[in-house]
Amino acid sequence: MQILVLNCGGSSMKYQLLAMPEEKVLAKGSIDRLFTPRAEVRHQVAGREAVRQPLPGATFADGIRWLVTALREEGIIAGVTDIDAIAHKLAHGGEKFQQPVLIDDEVLATLTSLSSLAPVHLPPAVAGIRVCQELLPGILQYAVFETNFHQTVPPYAYIYGLPYEWYEQYGIRKYGFHGTSHRYVAETAAGILGRELRELKLISCHLGSGTSVAAIKYGRSVDISSGLTPQSGTIMSTRPGDFDPWVFPFIMELTGMTPAAVNEVMVKKGGLLGISGLSGDMRDLEAAAREGHQRAQLAINVFCYQVKKYIGAFAAAMNGLDALIFTGGIGERSPAIRAGICRDLDFFGIELDEEKNKHRPRPDILSRDSAPVAILAIDTNEELMVARQVAELVGEQK
Amino acid sequence: MQILVLNCGGSSMKYQLLAMPEEKVLAKGSIDRLFTPRAEVRHQVAGREAVRQPLPGATFADGIRWLVTALREEGIIAGVTDIDAIAHKLAHGGEKFQQPVLIDDEVLATLTSLSSLAPVHLPPAVAGIRVCQELLPGILQYAVFETNFHQTVPPYAYIYGLPYEWYEQYGIRKYGFHGTSHRYVAETAAGILGRELRELKLISCHLGSGTSVAAIKYGRSVDISSGLTPQSGTIMSTRPGDFDPWVFPFIMELTGMTPAAVNEVMVKKGGLLGISGLSGDMRDLEAAAREGHQRAQLAINVFCYQVKKYIGAFAAAMNGLDALIFTGGIGERSPAIRAGICRDLDFFGIELDEEKNKHRPRPDILSRDSAPVAILAIDTNEELMVARQVAELVGEQK
Repeated sequence: MQILVLNCGGSSMKYQLLAMPEEKVLAKGSIDRLFTPRAEVRHQVAGREAVRQPLPGATFADGIRWLVTALREEGIIAGVTDIDAIAHKLAHGGEKFQQPVLIDDEVLATLTSLSSLAPVHLPPAVAGIRVCQELLPGILQYAVFETNFHQTVPPYAYIYGLPYEWYEQYGIRKYGFHGTSHRYVAETAAGILGRELRELKLISCHLGSGTSVAAIKYGRSVDISSGLTPQSGTIMSTRPGDFDPWVFPFIMELTGMTPAAVNEVMVKKGGLLGISGLSGDMRDLEAAAREGHQRAQLAINVFCYQVKKYIGAFAAAMNGLDALIFTGGIGERSPAIRAGICRDLDFFGIELDEEKNKHRPRPDILSRDSAPVAILAIDTNEELMVARQVAELVGEQK
Repeated sequence: MQILVLNCGGSSMKYQLLAMPEEKVLAKGSIDRLFTPRAEVRHQVAGREAVRQPLPGATFADGIRWLVTALREEGIIAGVTDIDAIAHKLAHGGEKFQQPVLIDDEVLATLTSLSSLAPVHLPPAVAGIRVCQELLPGILQYAVFETNFHQTVPPYAYIYGLPYEWYEQYGIRKYGFHGTSHRYVAETAAGILGRELRELKLISCHLGSGTSVAAIKYGRSVDISSGLTPQSGTIMSTRPGDFDPWVFPFIMELTGMTPAAVNEVMVKKGGLLGISGLSGDMRDLEAAAREGHQRAQLAINVFCYQVKKYIGAFAAAMNGLDALIFTGGIGERSPAIRAGICRDLDFFGIELDEEKNKHRPRPDILSRDSAPVAILAIDTNEELMVARQVAELVGEQK
C-alpha cells in the first residue's frame, strides 16, 4: 500500500510517499515559497541524491502535477492509481474531529467552518484537499489532525476560566497540538523500554521552532501545554507561549496598536527571539551564550525553566512519571537544553547521565541506570505516524 | 507602638489599629460603598460588640475623621499622636519598590507613575495617602506592597516570551501578588513545624476570591502563579486566571467587542462564576455540586486541578517540597477543596489525613503522620504582617 502524506501550508507543500506496512519512505520533499516567482521544489527519492528545481509562481495544483509526473518518471509509481490514499496533515480539528476521517463533502464543509480556530493553517489545507480531489479524483483522501491525540484530555484540564458560553458558541477551550509527534514518540518509547504503553506515565517534550509538552497517561493524552492556538504553552522560537493575557489590552492601550498588529509582533518577534533580541534559533543562542551574551542565556534559561515547570505540573496531573521523552529539533539534538531542563529534578527521579546525554547512544536512553525515571531522546516522525493511522483506515475501507 | 494599617480601595477603606510588638488588634473595621449614599462603617473594638453606622456619601477624608473621632471617644487613643505610623497596604510596587518604604513626595510621584500597572488599585491608594498626609500631618506613613515579597523571583521566572523592549519600556513582566499573605503563612508554618524558614521548601496556596500559589524556597519567593496583573494564575471567583492569551483578539474579532468590554466580561464573569454559570462563591458551588449541578462540579474540578498543577510546577522549580500551606477563605475553611487538590499526589509525598482535614486540629497540621510533606491550614493575617514590617521600619527611624 502506498500513502502520500501531504501538508499544505500558507506558502509551502510538504510531502512524503510511504510504502505501508513496510514503513518505507519512497520519496519525500517540499515545494517552498509557493505563489511567488521564487517557488522551488526540493525532492528526494529513497537512495538517490536530493534534487532542487525552480517552479516559478507554482500553486498547489502545479505542485501536485509536478510531483505525480516526477514519481512516474522516476519509476516510483506506474500511475496515480498506485497511490492508495492521500493523508492530509491538518493543524486543527476542533471538537468535531476526534480522530482521522475519510474526507467527503460534509467533512470539507465542517473544515471550512472551523477556519476561525486556525485561520493561518486550515484555509490552505482545505485548498490543498480540493486540488487533490480535482487532479486525483479516484484516490481516497483522509484528514489527520494535530489535535486528535489530545481529544482525551478531560474537561477540567481543557476548560478555561471564561464565560462557558464562549466555549459553547465559539469553541474556546484548550485543544493542544503536535499530537502526531507526541503519539509517535510515546509509542516508540514504550517499544524502547520494552513495556506496554497502557501501563506508562509519560511526559513528551516536543522542542523545536514550535514547542509543546504533553502528559500521556496509559497511552492517552491527559494534558498538553498548548491551548486554543499553537503559540500558547512554553516559549518557542519567535512565539511567546503563556503570559498574562492582560498584556494584550495593556499593550494596545499603551501603544495604540491594533489587535492584529500586537498579534503580529507577539508571534513573530516574541519567544526566544524576543527575549534575546538576537535570534529565534536555539543553536545561535547556545553559541552566543557561550560567548557571554546575557540575554541569549536568559532566553535559554526561560525556555528550560518553562519546560521544567510543565514536567512538574504534568507529574502532578498523573501522580507519577515513568519516562521523560525529548523530541523535535532541539529535543533531539541539543544536549545542553536537555541538561538544562533535567537539572535539579532528582526529587522527581529524573537523573540525566551526562555522558549518554552527550553521545545519544542507541537505544536512546539517557538517564542513569539507577534512576527511577527513564529519559529518552527520540527522533520524531510525524509523517510515518500519519501514514500508520491512515493505513489502518484504508485497510478497514477496503 | 501603635500602627494603623490602611487599605484604601476603589469603594472601600479597611483598617486595623495594632499595638506592636504585642501584636494586639486594638480596633478594626471597614467603610464600604464609599462615595455612595449607602456608605456604611463596620467597626469593632477589641473585646466589644461590632457596630454599624451609616455614613452617607463618605469620602476617604470622612472615613479617616470618623475613625480618629471614634478611637478617641472609645479611649483607644488619647490623640492622633498616639498613632506611631500609618501603614498603607498597596497592590503594586512594580520594580521600583523592592520593599516597604517611608512615603515622601518622591515615593508618591513614583506611585502615580506606576498607576498604569494597577489602574484599579493604585489611584485610590494614592488618594488615601494624600488624605492622611492632610488630616494626620505629623504621622509617619509607610507603603507595603503585595508585590514586595516576590521581588526575589529570578528573571528566568518573571520574563515573558515577549519583545524585551516591552519589559524595559513598560515594565511588562510577572510580578505576583498576595505577597503579604504568603510571607505571613510561610513564617507561621516554620514556627508550627519548629524549623527554620531558611531551610524549608514551601508551597503556599492562598485560595480565596482572589487566589495565588507561591513557591517559597529558604524563605524567599522564587515563583508565583499570578503575573503582571492579579487576575492571572489560577482561576478565581470571577477572574479567569491563565488562559491562551490569543482568546483576547479572537473574541474581539468574533464579537466585535472592544478591549475594555472583553476585559470587563472576563474579570467579572469569568472564573468559577463563568464556568459554573451559577456563582463565584465556592460555598455555593460545593452545595450545588452535592445536589448534582454538573457545571458547579466542573468549576470546582478546574479550580483544584489548576492549583494541583502549580504545586507540581513549583515542586519542580524548587526540586523538592517540605510543606504545603493552605490559606485564604477557601484554603482555611474548605476541607473538600483541600482534599480535591491533595488527592492523588502521593508521588510528591503529599498525603492528607482525612480526619485532620475535616476538623483542623491545632496546630493545624493536616498531613498523615508518616507523610514526607507536611500539609498545613493557616489563617492568614495580612494586616499583622504589614504591621510587623512597618514596626521594624519605625524602630529604625526613631
